[in-house]
Amino acid sequence: MKEHEYFMRLALAEAEAAYREGEVPVGAVLVIKKEVIARDHNRTEQLMDPTAHAEMLCLTAAVTHLRSKYLRQATLYVTLEPCAMCAGALGWSQIGQIVFAVRDPERGFTRYAPSLLHPKTRWCEGPCASESQTLLQRFFREIR
Amino acid sequence: MKEHEYFMRLALAEAEAAYREGEVPVGAVLVIKKEVIARDHNRTEQLMDPTAHAEMLCLTAAVTHLRSKYLRQATLYVTLEPCAMCAGALGWSQIGQIVFAVRDPERGFTRYAPSLLHPKTRWCEGPCASESQTLLQRFFREIR
Repeated sequence: MKEHEYFMRLALAEAEAAYREGEVPVGAVLVIKKEVIARDHNRTEQLMDPTAHAEMLCLTAAVTHLRSKYLRQATLYVTLEPCAMCAGALGWSQIGQIVFAVRDPERGFTRYAPSLLHPKTRWCEGPCASESQTLLQRFFREIR
Repeated sequence: MKEHEYFMRLALAEAEAAYREGEVPVGAVLVIKKEVIARDHNRTEQLMDPTAHAEMLCLTAAVTHLRSKYLRQATLYVTLEPCAMCAGALGWSQIGQIVFAVRDPERGFTRYAPSLLHPKTRWCEGPCASESQTLLQRFFREIR
């Protein structure tokens, strides 16, 4: 759990960078054997691209770096539950593990389609939940 | 229907290009007001990226070209039913219409999560169904 918290704090730092840039504050870090392979945050406004979620950017960076379509050894830490698009992408990559901080009751994949992930992918939730939730609430309070 | 067939034939030409490159033969064309804005085919092997589906490449090219996150005026023609990742991405873009040639009983979004699309997105299936099916069957017969 300490390891999960350590990497989730890096993902939170990415979420805070997104917040400062006026993006929905979600961050992600992709780790293999305790090494950070990719880290990024939501950039949908900056790139004007609705697919530029933190998870998608990390996934594409990681597969490019590793020259492999598959991420079976990797763990993705992300501050918000992935949406179905991201879960579908992570499913294609056969990622080993997904750890997210808080659920997304509106858009989270567990509500829409929990079977999108590869059968061998493990996932859990919880590390840094309150910090992630606070940041998201602050963002949405300010823009409304 | 003639218009659907016309653009689906362009998508089929993309699928044939994918076939020649050793990719799963799926092609897509994105159209706004009868003008082709983007066209591409599956490039998951070439880019070593499991997210490089024809639909994702067309979507990203179109939003970059249009400088807009939304594709409400657009129709996407694709030779195979989109997977959940692509449907989720198309949902975020609020695309106007999706036309696909044949269903994907294994990975198609209508089986996993039909509610992934935006409520206003219309979709239909059928144009050039037999041509698309024949190309896919030829590909999978040859690699097995």
